[in-house]
Amino acid sequence: MKQSKLFTRTRKEAPSDEVSRNAKLLIRGGFIHKEMAGVYDYLPLGLRVIEKLKNIIREEMNAIGGEEVSLSALQDPEIWKASGRWDDKKIDVWFKTKLKNDTEIGLGCTHEEPMARMMKEHISSYRDLPRYIYQFQTKFRNELRAKSGIMRGREFLMKDMYSFNVSQNELDTFYEQLIRAYKNVYDKIGIGDRTYLTFASGGMFSKFSHEFQTVCDVGEDYIYIDKKKNIAVNDEVMQDEILKDLGIDRNDLVKEKSIEVGNIFKYGNRYSTPLGLVFKDENGEEKPVIMGAYGIGLGRLMGTVVEVLSDERGIVWPESIAPFVVHLLVLGKDETVLKEAEKIYDKLSASGIEVLFDDRIDVSAGEKFTEADLLGIPYRLVVSERSLEEGGIEIKKRTEDKNKIVSLENLLKLLAS
Amino acid sequence: MKQSKLFTRTRKEAPSDEVSRNAKLLIRGGFIHKEMAGVYDYLPLGLRVIEKLKNIIREEMNAIGGEEVSLSALQDPEIWKASGRWDDKKIDVWFKTKLKNDTEIGLGCTHEEPMARMMKEHISSYRDLPRYIYQFQTKFRNELRAKSGIMRGREFLMKDMYSFNVSQNELDTFYEQLIRAYKNVYDKIGIGDRTYLTFASGGMFSKFSHEFQTVCDVGEDYIYIDKKKNIAVNDEVMQDEILKDLGIDRNDLVKEKSIEVGNIFKYGNRYSTPLGLVFKDENGEEKPVIMGAYGIGLGRLMGTVVEVLSDERGIVWPESIAPFVVHLLVLGKDETVLKEAEKIYDKLSASGIEVLFDDRIDVSAGEKFTEADLLGIPYRLVVSERSLEEGGIEIKKRTEDKNKIVSLENLLKLLAS
Repeated sequence: MKQSKLFTRTRKEAPSDEVSRNAKLLIRGGFIHKEMAGVYDYLPLGLRVIEKLKNIIREEMNAIGGEEVSLSALQDPEIWKASGRWDDKKIDVWFKTKLKNDTEIGLGCTHEEPMARMMKEHISSYRDLPRYIYQFQTKFRNELRAKSGIMRGREFLMKDMYSFNVSQNELDTFYEQLIRAYKNVYDKIGIGDRTYLTFASGGMFSKFSHEFQTVCDVGEDYIYIDKKKNIAVNDEVMQDEILKDLGIDRNDLVKEKSIEVGNIFKYGNRYSTPLGLVFKDENGEEKPVIMGAYGIGLGRLMGTVVEVLSDERGIVWPESIAPFVVHLLVLGKDETVLKEAEKIYDKLSASGIEVLFDDRIDVSAGEKFTEADLLGIPYRLVVSERSLEEGGIEIKKRTEDKNKIVSLENLLKLLAS
Repeated sequence: MKQSKLFTRTRKEAPSDEVSRNAKLLIRGGFIHKEMAGVYDYLPLGLRVIEKLKNIIREEMNAIGGEEVSLSALQDPEIWKASGRWDDKKIDVWFKTKLKNDTEIGLGCTHEEPMARMMKEHISSYRDLPRYIYQFQTKFRNELRAKSGIMRGREFLMKDMYSFNVSQNELDTFYEQLIRAYKNVYDKIGIGDRTYLTFASGGMFSKFSHEFQTVCDVGEDYIYIDKKKNIAVNDEVMQDEILKDLGIDRNDLVKEKSIEVGNIFKYGNRYSTPLGLVFKDENGEEKPVIMGAYGIGLGRLMGTVVEVLSDERGIVWPESIAPFVVHLLVLGKDETVLKEAEKIYDKLSASGIEVLFDDRIDVSAGEKFTEADLLGIPYRLVVSERSLEEGGIEIKKRTEDKNKIVSLENLLKLLAS
C-alpha cells in the first residue's frame, strides 16, 4: 500500500488524557482512535493487526476441532435469569438497555448462556458430542475504570470458545489440547517466552482454573513464577497446602507484575443444567453436557505486544502480526530514484510481500525515519540516491541498528526466506 | 468439510413464531439461530455466506478507493448532541445505556457523527482529500416490530462507507462510481436483474437521494419501475413535476413490491459543520468537508437472496455466496463406495473446490436428498453403488432437475470452468 493513499496521519504527541503506553503509541501511529475511555476504533493499520491475530487464533482453534459462529450482542434476560447471572450483583459489568415495549435486555459480556441454549437445538445424543464452538465477537463490559488503553476496554473483540463434552474425562483431554493451542498463539506473536500458564482458584467443578499471564511491568496482576517448572500461580493459590499439592516450593517462586492474556474454565454442568442442555448417553440415560470456556481478548493481546516489545522510538511488531512486513521509504525528489523505488515496490508486491511504501515527496528523510520507527514494521528499506549509488537498497530490521545495502535480487531472496 | 463434523442439525419444521420465509428456511437449514425477535446468531454455514458477501463488497469498495476501519458500537452523546440527533424524536431507533457514573451513552445505529469526528484527526488540507472510509460493523436499531427475519434486525451487520470530498462536484463523480460498485455487488450475488436504482426524495443538499430496491413479493416498500430506463422511483417521487424532471412518463411505470437493499446519501456539510470537520483549500481558506454515506446491510442482502431465489424445496444459493460450491453425498454403507467417495472428496478439496461432504452413514438417501435441497448448495454430487457402476459420479445443479454421470476427471474439469 502506498502511504500517500493511507488516510491516517501520525501524531508527535499522544492525547493528554491517555496514560497507557499502548494507547499512546497506537494513537500516535494512527492504529486506533479513541471514542471514549475504554472505547476505541480500529483504523486501517490497526485493523490489519487485528485480522492477523484473528487468523493465527482461528488456525489454532480449527486445528483442535473448533467450529466458528457469531452470536449476537443483544441478550435475552430469560437465559441469564435461568443461570442466576442477570443480577447486577452477580455480573457487575452489565450494560443493560430496553426494547420499545420496555423489556430490559443486556449487552453480552460473555456467552455461556446463549451458547448453551443455542446448542440445545443441535445436541441430543452422545453421538452429537464433543463439540467445540468459537467466535470472534464484540463484548461489552461496563468497567468502572478504563485506563489501560486497549488492554481493558468497555467494548472489545474477544475470541471465546465453548466446549461441550460427554464427560469430565473427555473435557480434561481437550483442556490440555487447548492449553497447547493457546501457547502456540503466544509463541507465534512473540510473547511466548514471558507468558505463563498460571494456576488460579477453581470453582465447584475443578480444583483450579487457569489463566495465561504475560510478565509486564504495567500489568494489573501479580503472579509467582516457578521458572524451572515453567508455570506460575496467582495470589489466590499462594497457600502452603495448595502449593504443596502442586509440588511447588515457595522459595522457588519469583513475584512479577503481569497481564492476563487468556483464561480458561471447566464448568461441569454449571450452565448446562439450568439451561437444560442435556444428552442421552449410550444407555439412553439423560445427562447434562459438560462445558468449558476459553477466552482471549484481541485488543488485550495487541496491547500487550505493544507494551512488552516496543522501545523508546516506537512500536516493534513481530512479523506475524505486523500490519506490513516491509516499510519501503524513498528519499528525495529525484525522478530516477522515485521510479526505481516504484519498481521495487511493484516487484515486492508481485512477490506477495506486504509492503507499506512511503512514496510521499513532501516529507523529509528525518520525518520518514522517525515515523517508520513509530509504526514498527519489521523491515525498513530505504531507496535513495546514495543507496542506488552503493548498489541497491538499504535494509534494516526494526530490532537492529545496523543496516546493509542489498541488490533487489538478494532482497527478494532474503525476504522470501 | 465433512458433514459428520458439522455441529448444526437441519429441522423439518421452522419455529412456530417465525413468519418470514428467509428466517424459516435459514433456521431449518441451520444457517442461523434466533435469540429474540430481530436478533439472530450466525452458525457455521451462515457465517460462510456472510464472509463471502463481505469479500465481494470489500473488493468493490477497495476498487473505488475505500479504506477499511472498524468503529465502536458504543456512542459518545456529545457528538450526537452536536448534530442534533441524540434526541429520540430525531432518531427513533436508539438503544441507550449507562456507564457506571450514570452517563447515558448510545449504541450506534449509523456512524456519520463518529466518522466525522475521527476524520478531524486526519484531514486538515485539501491535500488530505478525497477519502473514502468504510467498515463492516454491527448496528443496533430499536425497531418497534421485527418480523422480517434477518431482513430487518435489531442488531445487524452493515457495510457503511462515508465519503469526504472537497466539493459537491468531486462528490458527484464519486457517487456515480459508487452506484456502479453497488450494481456490481447485486449482479455478483444474483439479484442484479431485479434490483433498481430508485429515486427517493432528497434533502437539503441534493434533489434526490437514492435507494437500491429489489423486486420481491414480501418487500415492505413499493416502487414504480421504468423498465426501459432501468430505474425506479418511490412513493415520495410520484409527483407529476418531479417525474417530468426525471424524464419519466407515468404510463411507463409498473408498480412492484420491493426490498431496500442499499441506500446512498449526499450530505453536503450536514455533519461536517456541526462536528467541525473542515479543511484548508488551495487558497488557505477554511471550508467544510463535503460528506456522503453509503449503506448495505449484509443480513438484508442474504435474506433477500433467500426470499427471491429459493423454491418450494429450499434455498438456492448463487455460487458466489454459497457456503460451499459442491455438496457431495455418499449413499449406502458399502465400504468400496465409502472409500471412493472419500477419494473424490480429497481430490476436489485438493483442487481448491469448497466441498461439503455428507459422509454420514446413519442417514438415508431420501433424507440426504431432502437436506441437500434445503441447504441449496449449487452442485449436488452423488456417489453410490449405482453411480460407480454407471462410470462415476452423478452431478446435478440445484437449479435443474436433470442429472448426469461424469468421471472424476471430467468432474474436475467441469467444476474448474
